[in-house]
Amino acid sequence: MFNAANWLGIAIDSTCGGRGTCGKCKVKMLAGALAPTEADRKHLTPAELDEGWRLSCRALVHSDCLVDVPRLMTSPKAALLGYGRHVALDPNVHKVFLQLAEPTLDDQRADIQRVKDALLDAGFEPHPTFLVLQVLPKILRDNNYRVTAVIVGDELIALEPGDTTGEMYGLAIDIGTTTVVVAVINLNTSAVVAVKSTLNGQASFGADVISRISYTMMEPDGLRTLQTRIVDTINSLTDELTTQAGVALNNVYEIVAVGNATMLHLLFGIDPEPIAQYPFVPAIEESVTLPISSLGLHAHPEARLTTLPHLGAYVGADIVAGVLATGVARNKDEKNRLYIDVGTNGEIVLGSAKITLATAAPAGPAFEGAQIKCGMRASEGAIESVRIDSDVQLQTIGNAPPIGICGSGLVDAVAELVRCGAVDATGRMLSAEEARATHRIPDAIVNRLIEVNGVRAFLLSSPAENIILTQQDVRALQFAKAAIAGGFRVLMQKLNLADDDLHEVLLAGSFGSYINPASARAIGLVPWIPVERIIAVGNAAGEGAKIALLSFREREAAKRFKEFITYVELSADPTFNDIFTDALAFPTRQED
Amino acid sequence: MFNAANWLGIAIDSTCGGRGTCGKCKVKMLAGALAPTEADRKHLTPAELDEGWRLSCRALVHSDCLVDVPRLMTSPKAALLGYGRHVALDPNVHKVFLQLAEPTLDDQRADIQRVKDALLDAGFEPHPTFLVLQVLPKILRDNNYRVTAVIVGDELIALEPGDTTGEMYGLAIDIGTTTVVVAVINLNTSAVVAVKSTLNGQASFGADVISRISYTMMEPDGLRTLQTRIVDTINSLTDELTTQAGVALNNVYEIVAVGNATMLHLLFGIDPEPIAQYPFVPAIEESVTLPISSLGLHAHPEARLTTLPHLGAYVGADIVAGVLATGVARNKDEKNRLYIDVGTNGEIVLGSAKITLATAAPAGPAFEGAQIKCGMRASEGAIESVRIDSDVQLQTIGNAPPIGICGSGLVDAVAELVRCGAVDATGRMLSAEEARATHRIPDAIVNRLIEVNGVRAFLLSSPAENIILTQQDVRALQFAKAAIAGGFRVLMQKLNLADDDLHEVLLAGSFGSYINPASARAIGLVPWIPVERIIAVGNAAGEGAKIALLSFREREAAKRFKEFITYVELSADPTFNDIFTDALAFPTRQED
Repeated sequence: MFNAANWLGIAIDSTCGGRGTCGKCKVKMLAGALAPTEADRKHLTPAELDEGWRLSCRALVHSDCLVDVPRLMTSPKAALLGYGRHVALDPNVHKVFLQLAEPTLDDQRADIQRVKDALLDAGFEPHPTFLVLQVLPKILRDNNYRVTAVIVGDELIALEPGDTTGEMYGLAIDIGTTTVVVAVINLNTSAVVAVKSTLNGQASFGADVISRISYTMMEPDGLRTLQTRIVDTINSLTDELTTQAGVALNNVYEIVAVGNATMLHLLFGIDPEPIAQYPFVPAIEESVTLPISSLGLHAHPEARLTTLPHLGAYVGADIVAGVLATGVARNKDEKNRLYIDVGTNGEIVLGSAKITLATAAPAGPAFEGAQIKCGMRASEGAIESVRIDSDVQLQTIGNAPPIGICGSGLVDAVAELVRCGAVDATGRMLSAEEARATHRIPDAIVNRLIEVNGVRAFLLSSPAENIILTQQDVRALQFAKAAIAGGFRVLMQKLNLADDDLHEVLLAGSFGSYINPASARAIGLVPWIPVERIIAVGNAAGEGAKIALLSFREREAAKRFKEFITYVELSADPTFNDIFTDALAFPTRQED
Repeated sequence: MFNAANWLGIAIDSTCGGRGTCGKCKVKMLAGALAPTEADRKHLTPAELDEGWRLSCRALVHSDCLVDVPRLMTSPKAALLGYGRHVALDPNVHKVFLQLAEPTLDDQRADIQRVKDALLDAGFEPHPTFLVLQVLPKILRDNNYRVTAVIVGDELIALEPGDTTGEMYGLAIDIGTTTVVVAVINLNTSAVVAVKSTLNGQASFGADVISRISYTMMEPDGLRTLQTRIVDTINSLTDELTTQAGVALNNVYEIVAVGNATMLHLLFGIDPEPIAQYPFVPAIEESVTLPISSLGLHAHPEARLTTLPHLGAYVGADIVAGVLATGVARNKDEKNRLYIDVGTNGEIVLGSAKITLATAAPAGPAFEGAQIKCGMRASEGAIESVRIDSDVQLQTIGNAPPIGICGSGLVDAVAELVRCGAVDATGRMLSAEEARATHRIPDAIVNRLIEVNGVRAFLLSSPAENIILTQQDVRALQFAKAAIAGGFRVLMQKLNLADDDLHEVLLAGSFGSYINPASARAIGLVPWIPVERIIAVGNAAGEGAKIALLSFREREAAKRFKEFITYVELSADPTFNDIFTDALAFPTRQED
């Protein structure tokens, strides 16, 4: 009931975040009987029970009921996070400063019982870890029984001398195949105190997940090597960021990490081979919680790592985090939204208030600039934006002289060539003669239609810089975008939705941030909806990790996404091939 | 309700041992309504729910109710263990042979989900350990999805190739201050396949718990040293016994260990100092469950260690195990029983059907033969039994020439001297003249009353062997037995019980096994009840560990002993000093 209310945006009081220990989330049943639970009997008086009061977090609802939610005694801390999500701040880490009575002959409670009793009074019932038990007698007596309990989830992971409640940090980590982002977050204030991204240390072993998996299959120690690389990548970022922010590693108690299924399998040292082989099955999809010592991550020695779950082998925890950050699934406004994370593997989520579908489309590396004649990564000198009117106008990263073209530039270039007619709807590039014969393509553009080794091409830059876009490049982009489009078209068909039925298209990931929405639409990479409703949501995965770190309720919701998001396996869908073929062409409609 | 029925000796069907997962323990409510639990909804049909069927293991009873327990479909395995306990065999370790369907495009469940689903069908819902996740993809595929799941408690600790259900072992360990006993037990058959005791490797650091604790306080690495010693002691026994029995260490999945609070603190590496210092508080009293890797014990790498709880700083898990093995507490026959474990520290439990009290009495080392002029441990050449009629008859361990006297011999000797009148009721040893003047003490005995350095003594052996019992020795025994007697008298007084109200006295521990019941009674070490009702129960602690290993229900019951056994702190009891003083004298009644 507590979670249902949370979904509906109804705030119910709670200190423990729905664990049945604080007794604050009571509601009054007005219709629909509910038997008292153990927690009810513990926290409520018999009179309250008779009046119908129940703890909402323990109340399991199996049929309709009507309840009265008391006005909040304190206004709950909340923040706008992700893509306009209003998130209740309720971290999974809690600190409680304890001032314990010293033992006497009349009070010979064991040390741990003394601590547990005091924590129960504060609304917590955690299990102590073994390390806590080992240091217990000394830390209590050395500090006159004034210590701070550090609770992560349902575990008491540390006792610290004196009152340390002010220092409480966590890490939100997005493990991308290419880029890893670590954010150090103050769990008291929800402030990001330091954040940085860097190249995934596995990158030298392959650009995409398939080549990483191949590496583990071919090298005897490949799996260990890749695991070590990602752990080292995360640790260097953590060390640098905590130093920079003046945060002690010992005050970092929890890590939430997201990433695709392969990245998380590699982080855990679990053989990812079956992900790459028919019928594409991961070892685990569920959320995992571990002591970080199992992996050698840097933080408090007893800190816990939690990963979000995957929806399928190719729709991973990064997408679950993105869904969490954007509210695509189970949204309250009953509008249909399409979430697309464009990359070598395109992940697509089509969400509505009732039904949400997800799939993965194998786009290939074109959007990363790979297998494109003059393609390159989005780094200095890459053409990132192309505009064609009387002639070509280029914009490069860092305003450097152009040395190649990256994904967003490629999408722009093809979109502009299609718009001006130099590439037709089927993707065929016109020869200079054909272009001149249309009488509507400017001469400067016609003159850029050349042949290189007998293959048609378009000269984007000056002849000296010689950045060209070939007919094959256009074909490569067509295949890539048709894979994505085929994916969302299959999902839209399953829900009987046309383009006009879509309220928004959310483009996630770094590629989604740099792409020109109009160009994406022009080549058919996204459905045809008004361009202002095609929105770049940035690193939604990282935002989702942050939300899961800051809100236990949101994390629990994300863990249950699998229950109401249906994973669609495209290679098992009989309509996919036809839809893919249709999606190869460029849209003929070119204006709103 | 399941546990209540178990206490009452009513067998309810169950595979999972009361974890709410097998669905077999259903009972029908005849009177007293009980709301359905989540487990009920999962395992029972709506029709069954309406008819009043509930899973007894999840049913929490808060008021009287009447239920119908179905006849058992299979007769439950049970065994007579401990002191005539009828114990349901229901180990905490389960093996399930799985033959899983291979994944297809239509069945892309993650590996772990596939395993979990199959286990749920078998009535188990365990959490996989991280190591299981790491090996999961390979072990499933290498063995054509035919593997054996090893479940300990609610954890899936291993997957083994093929069907290994026949090999399932555990260890029951009794960690005595002096002696450590390890038993290797076949969890399928409950047979003890190998058992051995050896000296606790800590013995060279002190004979009793106080000297061990002192060692940890005085030596910088003392705690680590003692921890290493006990771990090594256990490991050598385990290695030797498993080799001898042909049991692979990898097939040993669980360990149950008992011992006094100090022994278990040292095993865990927890500072025991506060146990020895006012106000005598242990760090933990509760049952602890740990992966054995935390301690470096030998068994399956993911095996779990569970200790039984303590009742107080000086009434430890060994006594809890003894109570479990003897059924002293919560017995069904409504008779009062007194359980005494005589040692440096005497532990006493006075149990009835309704109320059970426990206490510890600081007897000192007299019963161990220490601080006795010719005292020695119970080893070859020790006088273990003394009979006085016309002259002294001695029995020594190994029938060797006497070289000293051990505890049981000491009790015998003093009892016989009191009986024949050479020691009076106050403990005063008569001089030869005084003895002769009584005209009822045989001459041979009178002649043995001598003086050594101005102190009265009794020559037990030949003059050449010169084993003597001094007046101080008698005083030392008086103080020791008065401490024990003071303890049980305080408990009896609290329950208003006289000697005649006691049904049995159970003497536990090795000392309890060797002591002559009539002599114990003659010196007042036990209450005056018919001698045939003073029973040596042997190593009850070890038996209790075995029961806890073989029966999850019994283990759970033992974990809750603290709820209904009241710990009495003698040093806080205002009547103890008077009672102790009264108990110094020897009983004047000397026949049944």
